[in-house]
Parts: sequence; C-alpha cells; structure tokens
Amino acid sequence: MQWRIEEKGFNQEKIEFFGSKFSVGNGYFGYRGTLQEYGKEQLAACTLSEIFDDNGNGWREPINMPNGLLTKVYYRNKPLSVLDSKILEHTQGLDLSAGKQYRQTTLETEDGKKVTIEANQFASIDNIHLLVMEYSVKAEAAMELTIQTGIDEEIWNINGNHFASIEQKAEGAVSGLVCKTLQDSKEIAIGQLVKITKGNGTVTNDDTDITFALSLQPGETFAFEKYVAIGKDTDCENPWESVMAFCSEASDTGFETLLSKQSAAWKKRYDSFGLSIEGDEEALQAIYYSYYLLYSSAPTHTDKVAIPARGLSGQVYKGAYFWDTEIYMLPMFAYCAPEIAKNLMMYRVHNLEGAYEKAQEYGYRGAFFPWESQEKGQDGCTHYNLTDIFTGRKMRTYFRDKQVHISADVAYGIWKYVTITKDKSILLEGGAEVIMECARFFNSYAYFKKDKDRFELLDVTGADEYHERVNNDAYTNYMVWLTAKITLEVLDFLAKEHPDHYQKVMEKLDYEKELPEVKEMAEKIYLSKPNQDGIIEQFSGYFKEEDLSIEELYSRIIEPNEYLGSPVGLAVNTQIIKQADVILLLSLLSEEFSEDVKEKNWAYYEPRTEHGSSLSTCIYALLAAKIGKVDWAYQFLMKAAKLDLLGNYKQYLGPLYIGGTHPAANGGTWMVAVQGFGGLEAVEDGIVLNPHLPEHWKQLSFRFVYGEYICQACMDSKGISLQVEADTDAPLRVKVRDQVLTAKVGENYFAL
Amino acid sequence: MQWRIEEKGFNQEKIEFFGSKFSVGNGYFGYRGTLQEYGKEQLAACTLSEIFDDNGNGWREPINMPNGLLTKVYYRNKPLSVLDSKILEHTQGLDLSAGKQYRQTTLETEDGKKVTIEANQFASIDNIHLLVMEYSVKAEAAMELTIQTGIDEEIWNINGNHFASIEQKAEGAVSGLVCKTLQDSKEIAIGQLVKITKGNGTVTNDDTDITFALSLQPGETFAFEKYVAIGKDTDCENPWESVMAFCSEASDTGFETLLSKQSAAWKKRYDSFGLSIEGDEEALQAIYYSYYLLYSSAPTHTDKVAIPARGLSGQVYKGAYFWDTEIYMLPMFAYCAPEIAKNLMMYRVHNLEGAYEKAQEYGYRGAFFPWESQEKGQDGCTHYNLTDIFTGRKMRTYFRDKQVHISADVAYGIWKYVTITKDKSILLEGGAEVIMECARFFNSYAYFKKDKDRFELLDVTGADEYHERVNNDAYTNYMVWLTAKITLEVLDFLAKEHPDHYQKVMEKLDYEKELPEVKEMAEKIYLSKPNQDGIIEQFSGYFKEEDLSIEELYSRIIEPNEYLGSPVGLAVNTQIIKQADVILLLSLLSEEFSEDVKEKNWAYYEPRTEHGSSLSTCIYALLAAKIGKVDWAYQFLMKAAKLDLLGNYKQYLGPLYIGGTHPAANGGTWMVAVQGFGGLEAVEDGIVLNPHLPEHWKQLSFRFVYGEYICQACMDSKGISLQVEADTDAPLRVKVRDQVLTAKVGENYFAL
Repeated sequence: MQWRIEEKGFNQEKIEFFGSKFSVGNGYFGYRGTLQEYGKEQLAACTLSEIFDDNGNGWREPINMPNGLLTKVYYRNKPLSVLDSKILEHTQGLDLSAGKQYRQTTLETEDGKKVTIEANQFASIDNIHLLVMEYSVKAEAAMELTIQTGIDEEIWNINGNHFASIEQKAEGAVSGLVCKTLQDSKEIAIGQLVKITKGNGTVTNDDTDITFALSLQPGETFAFEKYVAIGKDTDCENPWESVMAFCSEASDTGFETLLSKQSAAWKKRYDSFGLSIEGDEEALQAIYYSYYLLYSSAPTHTDKVAIPARGLSGQVYKGAYFWDTEIYMLPMFAYCAPEIAKNLMMYRVHNLEGAYEKAQEYGYRGAFFPWESQEKGQDGCTHYNLTDIFTGRKMRTYFRDKQVHISADVAYGIWKYVTITKDKSILLEGGAEVIMECARFFNSYAYFKKDKDRFELLDVTGADEYHERVNNDAYTNYMVWLTAKITLEVLDFLAKEHPDHYQKVMEKLDYEKELPEVKEMAEKIYLSKPNQDGIIEQFSGYFKEEDLSIEELYSRIIEPNEYLGSPVGLAVNTQIIKQADVILLLSLLSEEFSEDVKEKNWAYYEPRTEHGSSLSTCIYALLAAKIGKVDWAYQFLMKAAKLDLLGNYKQYLGPLYIGGTHPAANGGTWMVAVQGFGGLEAVEDGIVLNPHLPEHWKQLSFRFVYGEYICQACMDSKGISLQVEADTDAPLRVKVRDQVLTAKVGENYFAL
Repeated sequence: MQWRIEEKGFNQEKIEFFGSKFSVGNGYFGYRGTLQEYGKEQLAACTLSEIFDDNGNGWREPINMPNGLLTKVYYRNKPLSVLDSKILEHTQGLDLSAGKQYRQTTLETEDGKKVTIEANQFASIDNIHLLVMEYSVKAEAAMELTIQTGIDEEIWNINGNHFASIEQKAEGAVSGLVCKTLQDSKEIAIGQLVKITKGNGTVTNDDTDITFALSLQPGETFAFEKYVAIGKDTDCENPWESVMAFCSEASDTGFETLLSKQSAAWKKRYDSFGLSIEGDEEALQAIYYSYYLLYSSAPTHTDKVAIPARGLSGQVYKGAYFWDTEIYMLPMFAYCAPEIAKNLMMYRVHNLEGAYEKAQEYGYRGAFFPWESQEKGQDGCTHYNLTDIFTGRKMRTYFRDKQVHISADVAYGIWKYVTITKDKSILLEGGAEVIMECARFFNSYAYFKKDKDRFELLDVTGADEYHERVNNDAYTNYMVWLTAKITLEVLDFLAKEHPDHYQKVMEKLDYEKELPEVKEMAEKIYLSKPNQDGIIEQFSGYFKEEDLSIEELYSRIIEPNEYLGSPVGLAVNTQIIKQADVILLLSLLSEEFSEDVKEKNWAYYEPRTEHGSSLSTCIYALLAAKIGKVDWAYQFLMKAAKLDLLGNYKQYLGPLYIGGTHPAANGGTWMVAVQGFGGLEAVEDGIVLNPHLPEHWKQLSFRFVYGEYICQACMDSKGISLQVEADTDAPLRVKVRDQVLTAKVGENYFAL
C-alpha cells in the first residue's frame, strides 16, 4: 500500500483543487490543503464543524476560522514563495498513514540563491482542538531571511464576514484571538504557540504576528514547531483558557510525539477498515484515500453533527448535512466504525424538533427532515438556489419543499444501523420516535386515490433532481413503503421487548390513531411494478417524455453552464436523468427485485443518466457489480474513487466556488468495493456474501462488523474465507451464492 | 342609436385591425373587414366554420377560402387603390343595422383625375352560403379604366396551405373553384356571378378572372353586383351545383332585395335584444356592436359547431372553441336567443366521444373536454404553445393537460341553459350524459386527503393562466362541486320526471357505482373558505407568494414581449394574476357568497390582476356592478365593450398574428350591462333584478327570456318596470332588492 499521495511541481491553476485534495481534518475542524504562504485568495481555510452563522447577506454557512498556520518567508523585504519566486523543485503531498500534509519547496532568490522550505501539518486526532505544524527553512548560501508566522484574520468566506468581533489575546507564550459570531454570539478562541527547534534568530512579537529575523549560513536550517488550538464555547467552558492550555500541553509533548500518536490513531482506523486488494495497487490507494477523507470529516467526538456534503473542506453547500449521510456515508461507518454511524444517526434524533417545525411550516404532521440540515436541524436550503443563465434571474427551485424522501432516508438510515450493528439502543434513545414521526409525515403527505385503492405521493422530487415536482417517483414511493414497514417492525420490537417504552412513546406521540394508518400505508402505497419490458417507470409519465440520447440533448445546449433540470432546463421534458433514481432503489432494496429486473433497468437507465452528480456513478457501479457487470462496475468505481484525487469536477459555478471533497462519493467507493464486488449485505438474520471480483483483483479482503461479530472476509477465484470473532459461541449465519451456511466463531470458515 | 361605425381616412397601420373591426359574418363563414383590393398580405380572408385542416406542418386550423370579393381597379395598367394611389377621401364603415360593410374612397390618378370607389358587402343571413357585394366606380374626368374582379387563390393561412387541389369551374354565368382539403378531403365549392348594374364596358372572362375595360365619361359611374356562394360537402350534396344555384337565385333576387331581407333579419335579432340606454349613446353603440360581432359568428344553422375564440374573424387560436363559450358567450344567447344557446350546448353533447378519448389519453374516466375543441371534439391544443423569448426554445405548457375546469364549465353551461330557458329537452337529448360524465371525470381526477377528510383537486391550472399546475384552485374546486351538485339534480329530475330515461342512462353509463361517489364529492370536496380577512385564497399557497404591485413586476421585465406566466415568467412566484379567478367564481356562484366577501375579494384581487386576457375585465366589471362599485364597473365595461372598436390589443406576438374579434369580451359586455348594472339573474324559481345603474344612465331597458316568459325590464332611479309576456297565466316570481314579488303576465309590473 502506497500511503503517500503526492504531486510534483507547482501549478497555479490547481491551487483550489489541491486545497481540497490535500486537506486534513479531525471532525472538529477541517484545514484545507493549502501552503503556509497562502491567504484567502488561495482559499486557505480552517472550517469549523458545528458552528454556523448567517450575516443576513447570503446563505447561512459554517464558520471559517482565522488561519493559524499562515507563515511567510521574506528575502530583501520581498516574499519568497511559490506565488512570487522562481521554483526549482516543489512537492506537495499527503501521508495517509498519519493524516499529515507535507510540502517541500526549493526556491531561487532573485540573486540566484537556493532556499528550501519544508513543512508538515496535521489535524490532531488525539486532541481534536489541535492543529500542529513543523516548518523549516534551509539556505544553500549565506543569506538574511525574515519569517513571519501568525494568525491570518483575512478570512475567506463565501457569504461574507461572520464575526461581530475579533479580540487580540496574548498570555505567556500563547497569543491568539477570541472571535464572536454575528448571529448567535458564539465565542471561539484560537491560540498559537511557536517553538524554535533548530537555529536561532531575533524574535519579535506584535499581537499575533511573530517575526524571526534570521542570518543563515550556507547549508543552515532554521526550524520551528507551531501548535494551534481552537476551542469554542459549545465544548470549552472558557475557550481562551482552554486553547492556552492545549497549546502549552502540545508544546510540552512536542511534534514528534504528537505525530506518533497521530500515526497510531490512524493505524487503528485503518486496522478496523482491514481492506486489501491483491493485484490493484491503484484501486487500493484510491479506496484508502476515500476512507481517509470521509473519516477526516466524521464526528468522532460528538453526536450533534453529521458530515457535510463537502466534508470539512470548506463552506460549500452551506456546510449542511444532506441525505448523503444516510444513503452514501452510513454503510461504511456502520460496518467499519459503528460508533460513528451511531453519532450520525443520533444527530437526526437530536434534531427531531427541526423536522417537526419544517412539517408544520408546510402544513404536515410528523417529521419532515431538512434538505440541508444545519446544527440544530434547521433547513439551510433556500427557495432560490439557481440563477437562470439567460436572464440572470434567481430561479425558484423545490429541493427544500419537495425532496420529501429525506424523511424516508433518515428512517432507513436508523434501521440500517440497527440491522448491521444489532445495536437497538438507538431505538430506545429516540430513534423509534424519529422513525414513527417520519411515517406520520408520509401519512399526512400522501393522497388516496379512491378508484385505484392506493396511496400516492404527488408533487415530489425524487433522487433525480432534473425532474422536479413529479408524481409517484419510484425511489420515493418504495422508500416511504419501507418507512411504514420499518415503523411497524420497530413498534413490534418495542411492544415485545420493551413494553414500558412502547407504552411511553405511543402515548407521548399520541400514536394509537396513527398506527392503523401506517399499516394501511404499508399495504396500499402505490409501488410501480416493472412494465412488460421489465422496466420500472421512474415517475408517473416518465415514459411519455422525449427519449433521446445524452449527446443529442447536449447538442441543444446554448450556454455551456446552463442548468439542465427543472423548471425549464433541457432535460426536463426528456427521459435524461441527472443521477440514479430507480437504480438507487434497486440497490438499496436489493432483496425486493429479481436479478432480471435489475439487469433490465440498469440497461435502460444507464444510457439515460447524465451522472451529473457525484451521487450517481457509485450507485450504478454498485448495482453493476451486484449483477455481474464487473468491467463496467470497475470503471465507475475508479471514477468515483478517484474523483477527489483527480479533481475532475467543477471548481466554480459562475463566480461561486463549489469545489471541495466529496464524502458521498468517498462512501460510495467503499460500497462498490465491499458491497458491490465483495457482495456483502447484512440482513435480519445474518450476512450475505456474493462476490463478483474484477478479473485482475486476485484477492479482496475486508473487515466488517455484524452485530457482535467482527469478521474478516477474504475472497478470490477459489472461494471465500471468513474469520469471525465474537464473545458468543453462536455461529454466524452466512449466505454465500444462495447457499445458507454457518460460520463458527474463532474458526476460519471457507466456502466455494 | 347610431347604427354606423365608421372611420375616416386611411391608415396603413390599421389594415389588420380594421380587418377585424369591420368584419361581417353569418355563422357559416366570416369575411374580414378588408377592402376589395386587398390580398393575403393585408390579411384578407374568408374563414369557414366547421371545416378544419392539418397539413402536418403546424397547428390544425380552420379553412380560409379563396377570396371571392377580390376586385382591383387599374388606370394606365397600374393599380388604383388605397395601397398605391393618392387618397383624397376615404371612409370605411359598418352598418350594424344590416351587418353590412361599406367603403367610399376617392383617389387621384397620377395625372390628377379623381376616381371614387364605393362598395357594400354583407354575409347573408337569409342564405348563409351567400356573400354579396355591390361595387361602383365613378370617374370625375374622362378616363379609361380596367376593373378586374375574381376569386383570389392566394390564400392567407397562418399554418400553410390546406388544399390538396383547387379545380377551376365555369358554367353559364357562374364561375368558381372546387377545393379539396388535405387532411380529410372535404370538398368545398365557391362560385361567383357578376351582374353589371350601371354603365357598360368590354367584359373578358378568363377562368375566374372577370375584366371590365371601361371608357368613362366625366361624372359617369360603372357599377356591378357580385354574388359569391360557398357550399361544402357537409351541408350540400353537390357543392358546385349548390353554389351555382345560390348565385343564380341571388342574382335573380338582386342586391337591393337581399339587403332588405338582411336588414329585416338583423332587425329581428336586435328586437330580441331590446336593449336601450338613456343617457349614454356611446355605451349603447358599443354594446350593440358587441352583440353584432358575437351574433355574426354564432351557429344559427347548426349545432355541430360553437363560437371560436376569435369568432370567424380569422384562424387565430386554431378556430377552436374554448370555455369562453359556456362562461362568456352562453348567457347572452340563453337570455336573448335561446335557440343559439342550445346549439352551442348541443355541440358539446355531440362531442362527448372526444371528451372520453381525452380522458382515456390521460388515464382518467369520464369526460375530459378539450381545451381547444375542434369540429369533432378533438383537442387542437398542443403541448408546446409558447416560445421562450430568451432562448428561442418551445416551452412546455399545460393548458391542454391541466385546465380541467373545462369539464365543469361544460356541465355548468348546460345547467345554466336549462335554468334560464327551462328547456330540459337538452337533458334528454344527451345533456344528462355529458353532465354525468363530467362528474365522473372529476371523481377520477380528484384525490382524497384522509386526515382532512376531503377531496382535493391537485395539479390544475385554474382560470388564471399565469399560475399553472397549482393545487385546489378556488374557481376549479367550486365548479367541480357544482358539477357534482348539478349531476345529482339532473338525476333527481330524470328519476322523477323521466324514469325510463333515467333507467336507460344509468345503465348505459354503468352509473350505479358512480352515483355514491358523486354524492361524496358534493359533500367532501375542499372548498376554500374566506380567511380571517374575508379573502378566499386563489390556490393552496397563493398567499405565500410574493406580494408586489403590478408596476414593480413590470419594472423587472427585460424583454417587452416576455411571457409572464408559467413555467418561469415573472408573475409565477408572485400574487400577480393574469385574469379573474376567485372573482369569476364569486360572479358565477353569486348566491353562495356574501356581499362582504365579494367586496373584500374584489378589493384584494383587482390590484393584483393584470387583466392580461380579454376574459378578465368584464368579469371584474360584472362583480363591481353587483356590489355597487358602479363607477369602476362602468370604466371596465367600456374597456370590454370597446376592445374591438378601439383595437387596444396586440395584433402580433412576434411574427404570429393573434388579432381578431373577441367574442368572450363581446358576451362579457352584455353580462356587465344586463347582469351587472341591470342585476338580472335567473334562478331556479324565478328571476332576480337588483340594478345598480351608472349615474348618467337615466334609464336602462332590456329584453330577456326566462322559461316561457318573455320579459322587457326597464329601470331608472325611480324603480323597475317589467312587462311579461307568456302563454301561461302563472305569474313570474321576481326578486327585487331582497323583496320577493310576482309579476302577472300581460301587465306592466312596477317595483320600487
């Protein structure tokens, strides 16, 4: 396994992309993969989790902190940097094994002298408040240099300033800032402590600016370590006191020791991943990189936040939590790090109130979860999300109003967590209420069609966002059916196993009247069946829309950046879709559909799918792998897995930065590898392993948790081996290619 | 009463408008108010009723016939006409008393000689196949002139040629053409016969071209009469034989006698109108002109057609029949000429099959009437009716799919006809089936909302076309409720009075199962009630739309011709509406709402209404009159009444001609005058008279029919007099300003 991902040479045009690609994070904050000399113009940013702000002039978005790693080198009073100087050599990279960004740059001064800058930085897992850096400058010839390091108050924000005040602080060796947010007056402190570790120079302190005046001999190196700490009043009683303490402790511990701890922490994470591929180093690294990115943004320390659509790589998409969490990110965590999966789901439980409020706002009962959920479950999604490129007018979009499947996705997520982990505690901690209230929401949303004796879900936007406000979107209807079924199962479980709790929630939610309606919904909701050709219609009337090739659709484009979706985009009255919808349904509710239906629908919908969303490719790959279209699945796996490595996505939409990492695709990558090729599926009473390996994958091995069982599966062309550890003697039920077998704990089980 | 409407002087820019303003017609055909020298460039056209054609390259539209009145004068081989010559005097006018267009033009030749052309033409009521003209030329000085008259085969069509063949014919004194349509191979013949009545000249015949070579003395007049006849194979066994006969008969009768008959026929029509206003000549003429226009396009001879949206003044709006028929045109005919009202409604009865087909096309049961109905009840409305001015792309519109209120309008129309005329024969002749099937359609269209225990009508376009695809449009829901109620009343009537017929239709339509559902619909359809401010919300969510002034909306316009309605027009996400919706509801279902609700809603909606449709002004005026806002009502009455007199409407939308007369506004004009100011309303057991006269109307008098009663009402500031004639002795129940009185037949009844 090649742990290092690196790029040689400097490319001005890739600054924004590398800022995402080489980002580090620990769930508490993300720090973009920028160089120390970068400022807001280069999109340097330290994005906080959990704190959002709305200054009234744009979208509500997460806080970017002042940049604590800003460090600049001056020669003859002029900056010496990749942006200003002749570059002789430059390497920027990420060491996945420690979650550490590094850079090594050799520059030439205007009078031909070589200077080499090296730096390493990471977001500490051991103490999530810490951002740690070591920085060195080596002169090839004798020279006077000045180095300035500090905390950059010039903050890059997409929607303007978010601080009402920024106060300078300095006590002992620590200097820093205490910031207060505009909207909620949240207090956040950032502190820095700098320790010279090699060479010496004259040090000047001016507020948070620390200047080293150096006189270097040929071959001499000057080095320092920098400990930056961030604390906010939601987790530190006195943020400034806390960050001072964090900085001092870190400095006492020292960079090397902190880095060892960091490597050990990441090793533990990778061990629980336990994935290996024989015969495909490239795929292996891309999959580990996906895992790294997703984990870097994951809330390990709290169940009050989830993972934003662009991770913690910036403020894009308002730092909000979408359905991506449940559908794309949850599976990997539930199988590999169930405690994080629980945090993600508990985030929804904590924000049931926000879902009630949204339902009420629209005149519905129950829980209508936000489309773009922020820290308290408020919906960050606005009514006007797009601009008509032809008129410059804001366009009314219905993402917020009509993507009602979000509430089904949440119920599905909790249930999926329970199915994989068997940890039903979440149901007693509020999970049951969430599921029940989601079902209630759909009872109130649905309409009954008397002459067809069925419930219908009208005026919804399904997974495919190009077709807004359609009737009976297949994905949505099936997921709502599932929500009703899950609700009945949960209530059945509570009634049997926790009758007191059952009584309590039934009363608290006044659910006696609702229950028969949930049953009726489970029986009578309209579920579109495959037609004579085996195809499930994406929504009522979809087959009547114009059927043309994507190429033909593209040939109608007038403006390169025109939006193809609703209300008037070119795809609207056609069968061209943005992303997986029916195919997502067939992937998630795999057991409900025959192989034949999956094959036929895949063949029908794939050529009609633009994959204009990072949520699409991995799902098509997942189903392709399941139905044995291995070559195709592999190509699309690599597309999803390398998305953030290659940066083949738009950085800007007009003047709006939309780049960053893609946690949904990162999670989807794992799904394709393990659930697609590995064929892993947790079911009620055991696991399924139904592998379809790419030919050049000589062996695939991965670790996963199923209830109390910790399993390592290993598969190759000869068969499957499964090592199962658990505290129980009960064997694990395993279904392998239609054979039902049992794997004994502690033994290495083999199947053909 | 000033019967002549005329314009002095020639204005090139008004050619198209005058073509509509001075048009003549008899329900069989319309002939535009163009001058004899005009061709297709000046939109000369003779538009046939009942025959439509689709050449595959555009919209299906009615047939324009070759122009039988084309007549050109040449001097020195150059045309002498308003288009080519110096005009010394020019008058064009319409004599309403005879439905006759006239012109008088004095031109100056290039060498300074005066020539005066006079012509009169009318579409015969006595023989609807006939178009009759007299034409004269008077020379002030000695001159040689050539006059050519013939049948112009250069036909103006909006959507291209509609004839597969045009065959030349000549027999005896009659020459002409036999044309065959492309789509349905309909045969239509046109013949001409020319008779010189003054002066003489050398006559040359070349096919249908007739040339007079004249040598005129100073002051000498040359005159001829021209008899043009049109016959089609739907009403003439042999069209050519028929038109020959018609021409010969007409020639034998002579222009003068035909004109006398024509005047007598129109007199009879005006007598049945019996309207007079003391103190407002201008309004009186405008109302008579509206009556003239509407009657000119009305099917007096057949119940197989209705009145197109632009009358017979051209092919605009595909010559199709809209809901305008029932809502705007029917009342005047039902009260003044019930036999025409019955024709209009029987047209719907004959086309129930088309409504079945449309319902099936959309997956519904019952009768979904066409939005743009053509001769066999097929829907001429297309899916792409508008072009996006910014992209040049066709826009998907939902007029055809979603204006489901059309079926309620049809049921309402038939029931309104019965209520006014008491002629229930229409119910036995198919009217009951139409009403029942409309109710069935809504049963199949509606959704039931269980938690609100009500039916809702979702995804409809109401009367206001700017807001497409809304839920629970107030107008639509109430009209559907009315449809259910009417159905129950009709079935109740049949069961009691015609039990055999009841049995027959119930069986034929398999209606036993439907009936309880109709009852449930009548009870449980959601009818939006006035809110705390007394306002009825136009559709669910309307109040949440942006509330701004029309001026502010206009200030956002980028392109003068941009469409303001759905899908992305500026009005869509605002409360600005195109036309009366709630106000139409309050006008039609007047008895269901209090005066207070009417006043408050009028005050709320009027400033938010763009009146961007000729269907709007008259309805606001009608309700304004009913609630005593007399000054306002008067202003808007005059706006509606003078629409076709002043031509204050768009002639073109881009390159598309959309001009013509406005029968809906013509009918609306009568409604404002008689039902608004006069306060006439026919109810189940009598009539209501609740006048609110404009101050300067010293007296308003009008004639109307109510069942077997023929009434002349006369009202002034002192009171109301009512003269009632009937074959019965039973007195008429009259409600005057909340007092219920009885008017004895044959007596002149007075009320304060």
